[in-house]
Amino acid sequence: MRQLVEIDDRLAPVQRVLADALARVESRFDAQLGSDLPAVRELCAHVERYRGKMLRPTLVVLCALAADPRASRRPETTHATAAHVTVAAVCEMVHMATLVHDDVLDEAENRRRGRTVNHLYGNEAAVILGDYLIASAFELCTQLDSVISARLIGAVSMTTCAGELLQLRFRDEYSIDEETYFEIVERKTAALIGASCELGVLHSGANPETARLLAEFGRRLGVAFQVQDDLLDLTGDETIVGKSLGRDLAKGKLTLPMIHHLAGATPTQRGRSLRLAEAAAGASETAHDAALALREALDSTESIAHARETARRLANQARTLLTGLHDSPAREFLDKLATAVVERAY
Amino acid sequence: MRQLVEIDDRLAPVQRVLADALARVESRFDAQLGSDLPAVRELCAHVERYRGKMLRPTLVVLCALAADPRASRRPETTHATAAHVTVAAVCEMVHMATLVHDDVLDEAENRRRGRTVNHLYGNEAAVILGDYLIASAFELCTQLDSVISARLIGAVSMTTCAGELLQLRFRDEYSIDEETYFEIVERKTAALIGASCELGVLHSGANPETARLLAEFGRRLGVAFQVQDDLLDLTGDETIVGKSLGRDLAKGKLTLPMIHHLAGATPTQRGRSLRLAEAAAGASETAHDAALALREALDSTESIAHARETARRLANQARTLLTGLHDSPAREFLDKLATAVVERAY
Repeated sequence: MRQLVEIDDRLAPVQRVLADALARVESRFDAQLGSDLPAVRELCAHVERYRGKMLRPTLVVLCALAADPRASRRPETTHATAAHVTVAAVCEMVHMATLVHDDVLDEAENRRRGRTVNHLYGNEAAVILGDYLIASAFELCTQLDSVISARLIGAVSMTTCAGELLQLRFRDEYSIDEETYFEIVERKTAALIGASCELGVLHSGANPETARLLAEFGRRLGVAFQVQDDLLDLTGDETIVGKSLGRDLAKGKLTLPMIHHLAGATPTQRGRSLRLAEAAAGASETAHDAALALREALDSTESIAHARETARRLANQARTLLTGLHDSPAREFLDKLATAVVERAY
Repeated sequence: MRQLVEIDDRLAPVQRVLADALARVESRFDAQLGSDLPAVRELCAHVERYRGKMLRPTLVVLCALAADPRASRRPETTHATAAHVTVAAVCEMVHMATLVHDDVLDEAENRRRGRTVNHLYGNEAAVILGDYLIASAFELCTQLDSVISARLIGAVSMTTCAGELLQLRFRDEYSIDEETYFEIVERKTAALIGASCELGVLHSGANPETARLLAEFGRRLGVAFQVQDDLLDLTGDETIVGKSLGRDLAKGKLTLPMIHHLAGATPTQRGRSLRLAEAAAGASETAHDAALALREALDSTESIAHARETARRLANQARTLLTGLHDSPAREFLDKLATAVVERAY
C-alpha cells in the first residue's frame, strides 16, 4: 500500500522505517518456508511471487510506530524490532495461505499477473501448499517469547475460516441482506487486518487501550478494503487489477453493490439483473455486453455509489479512531493509508 | 486402539486412566470446535463422527504415564492432567484436519462407515473445514502455559505437509524406491505420531532423554502403522476396514508391497501388474478379478510377506526402545499396543 500514499518530508522517515522493515519481513518470510525438499521449495518460490500490497505487514509496522510515543515522534532514530518483523511475516503468511486456498475454491487461473498454484500444479498441490503455509505461520509465531501472539493468530484464523464457511453457506442465495454480508466480511477479511494492527501495538509495549483502539481501526479499515475489492471486481480494469474480474458473480458470491441493487429493484428488474449477472459471469461472446448492461442496471439503483459511499464512510470511521492517538508522522501515514485503501484502482 | 489390546488385571488400572482421559479429550475436542455459527457447527458435528482409533491421544496418555515413575507404578492413584488432555485433543485435531483434506485430494466418498465431508458438502466446504480444524488445533495449543507444545505442533504440521507434497511429487512414478517411500511415510504419518508421544512425556515432567526415546518409539510405530494401512488397502476386508479399499492404487500412490513387487518382477510381469493395478482401481466389472490377479502377482514375488515382515520389524524396534523405561503397567500397555498396530484388521 505504501506506493499509494504520497510521501512528503514529514512522512519520509516513517517511509524509510517501513521500507527497511518490509524488506526484512520478506527475508523472514522466505527463510521460514525454506525446506530440504525441492518439491516444497519450488511451490514456495511460486507463492513469493503472489506478494502484493503487503497491507498486513505495513499495518503491523505503522501501528507499532504510532502506538509508541518515543518512536513515533522521532521515527528517524528508530527501526522495527525483530518481533515486529516476525509478527508481520506471520500475518502475511496466514493471508497467503487463504489466497492459495481461495484460488482453489474459486478455480481462479490468475493472481497478481501470474498463474495460480492450482492452475499450474493442480488442486492437490495447492491444498497442501496452503496447509504448509498455515503451519509455517504458526510455527513462526511460536518463535516469539510470549504465547499471546500465537493465541491471537490461532483465534483469528478460526474466525477467518468461519467467515469463509458462512460465505459458502450463502452462495447463490440472492436474498442475502447487508447485515449478513458485513458479518461475513468482518470475519473473513477484517479480523486478520484488525489483528495485524493489534499485534503491532502489543509488541510496541503500548497499553491495552491503544491495542484495542488500533484493532478496531484495523477492522473498520478491513471492511472498507473488502468493499473496495468488491467494487473493483465489478468495475475495475483487469489490466490494472491484475486478476480475473467478475469472479464474485461467477462463483455466486453476492457483493455489496449487487445486494443493494437486488433489494431496491423491482421484481422484473431483479430477474433481468440476475440473468445479466449469469451471462456476464459466463464465457460466451455476449459476456462483455451483459457486464455493461449490468453495470447500467446497478447505476440505475445507485448501487455502485452506495458501495463507494459505504467504503468511504468506513474508512473515515477508521480515521476518526486515529484521533485517539497523539499526533505523529506514523499516525498521519495511517490516516493517508486509510484514504488510499478506498481510492485505489487495484 | 484400546479395543485391540487385551486387558488383564495388571493393565486394568491403566485402562481406566486411559478411558477417563479419552472421554475428556472428546469433550475438549468438541468444546474447542464450538461456534456461534450453525454452518460451522453442522460441519464440525460431522467431523466428530470421523473419530476412530484415537491412536494419537492414546499415545499421549500412555507415554505420559510410562514416563512418570510415580504414576506408572500406581496408575490406580493417578489420572491424566488437564495439559495431557489438551495436548491429546490437539494431536487428534491436527490428524482430523489431514483426514478431511486427504479425502478431498483422494476424492474419497466414505470414511469410518460414513460419507466424507467433501462428498456430502462439496470440496469447498471440506477445504475450509480442514483449515478451521488446523486453526482450532493451534489455538487450543496456545492455551497451555508454555510455548514449547505449540512450537512442536507447528513444526510437525509443516513436516506432515512436506511429506504430502513429496508423495504428490512421486504420484504415478512407478520407479519410486523403498527409500523414498520411507522418507514420505516418516514425514506424512510418523512425525505426528512421534510428536504425540513426545508431548505426552514433556507434560509429565520427565527428563529430555525420555522424551527423545518415546518420540523415536512413536516414529517407528508410526511407520509400522502406515505400512499396515497400506497392506489393508490391498488385502483388507472393506466391511471391516470401513473405507473404500484400493484407493492408493487408484490415486497412483505406490505403497510398499507394490514397490517391492515392481522392483523384483521381470519386465513382462511388471507391465502386466501395472495393467492389473489400473484395472483393479477402476470401476469396471472386471475390477474385482483384476484385484485378485494382482494379489496373486504380489504373492509370487513375496511382496505382501515382505511388507508384513517390515511392519513387524518396525513394531519390534519400537518395542525394544521401551526397554529403556522402567517396568510398569503403562509400559506393558504400550508394548501390547505396538504389537496390535501391525496385527490389526482395520
